[in-house]
Amino acid sequence: MLNGAPYIILVNPQLAENVGMTARAMMNCGLYNLRLVNPRENHLCDKAISASSNASSILENAQVFSSLKEAVADLHHIFATTARRREMIKPIYLPETAMKEISQNIENARYGVIFGAERTGLENDDVAICDGIIEIPLNPEHTSLNLSQAVLLIGYEWQKLKNTRDGKILITNKTEISTKEEVLTFLDFVENELDKVGKFDNDEKRPRMVRNLQNMFVRADITQQEIKTLYGVIKFLTNKKEAE
Amino acid sequence: MLNGAPYIILVNPQLAENVGMTARAMMNCGLYNLRLVNPRENHLCDKAISASSNASSILENAQVFSSLKEAVADLHHIFATTARRREMIKPIYLPETAMKEISQNIENARYGVIFGAERTGLENDDVAICDGIIEIPLNPEHTSLNLSQAVLLIGYEWQKLKNTRDGKILITNKTEISTKEEVLTFLDFVENELDKVGKFDNDEKRPRMVRNLQNMFVRADITQQEIKTLYGVIKFLTNKKEAE
Repeated sequence: MLNGAPYIILVNPQLAENVGMTARAMMNCGLYNLRLVNPRENHLCDKAISASSNASSILENAQVFSSLKEAVADLHHIFATTARRREMIKPIYLPETAMKEISQNIENARYGVIFGAERTGLENDDVAICDGIIEIPLNPEHTSLNLSQAVLLIGYEWQKLKNTRDGKILITNKTEISTKEEVLTFLDFVENELDKVGKFDNDEKRPRMVRNLQNMFVRADITQQEIKTLYGVIKFLTNKKEAE
Repeated sequence: MLNGAPYIILVNPQLAENVGMTARAMMNCGLYNLRLVNPRENHLCDKAISASSNASSILENAQVFSSLKEAVADLHHIFATTARRREMIKPIYLPETAMKEISQNIENARYGVIFGAERTGLENDDVAICDGIIEIPLNPEHTSLNLSQAVLLIGYEWQKLKNTRDGKILITNKTEISTKEEVLTFLDFVENELDKVGKFDNDEKRPRMVRNLQNMFVRADITQQEIKTLYGVIKFLTNKKEAE
């Protein structure tokens, strides 16, 4: 678990709704500290609160400043987010690299990530005072993002650092994956039932069919509960056969 | 460059605006194939087109179906996106893992990623026919995302696979990082100028000050252009001194 988190700083946001949606995106990503530089609309108006969904607390705690310099005065490192390359000598980060750098130092330093106004983005003067630029890797022909979506993608990379889940897990709830013995015993049962029905035991296609069944059931990561369901299906089918 | 891309499938989307914003998010992420199952509003209405920003082509090419089964009939693998754990035995993926799996097989199979309606999400019956579940790792206390934002995060992980940029690069534009000789020659020049001004050459603090300057300038990854600026500043300062 990370202690602390970067400040999210919106410069000249135009629409209260976007500020509200930004708060919601921040809440989704475990970011709670919002700073606003000269917002055009009141960030506590109904539109903003409504757009924030359940994140109005972030709006209520937001700090408002009249210049970017004031908004970053007490911070140690600040990143500008921009899709436009500038004629500036500045390190350009992928979002995940910037978030990793922040997380490694967040206990000893205060960080901010700065977002420009809708449409116009950040001014060169704003970018110049930043330690680095975060460039979100998007379709190069369509990089224009809604303000809250830019915040969401940066926040997502922040929240991802806290994830401890594996990339792919099988949720089995109250049951477990069958052991090889359980799967193979079931397949023996199927073979037996097939043999009972007819000439399958003498068929030259038999070995291939058995291998096909093995391949399929092994691949399916079948659970104990599912094996029970399958026994039920086969028994139901064969009882029906016998009853015919 | 990846050939092909997964289909994005929205089940019962309620608001045309969200469908439009989804198209925009898809365009940001190099996803072009949209399928809609029983959209409540016309996906080509003004609200949708306007919300799509420059992605109306995706709306115009979207296919509409009357059931999820029809919408996925020609696909080989489908993923459900949901934040709610179900009583189902199903592999659960992180977005990046699912996108990697898709990208590794996209040339031989058609994939779909399925998103439920605003508020209600996907029904259990929808999830049951999916090969796997994608669970976006968010703040566990606030996982509720706007529909287009869920599509954006999945699309972002797709688009990230195409990124070849390093995590941190220094953009120097027309100049280059200075060599060690260039930096040290400049620092010698500074020392010299300081010595000219006064007693700095006899000061016992001299070695420490020189090391401080070295540390600072080495750390800054200073470019040739910036060294020129610094020479200019020092020369300007010393000329002024002489003129006094």
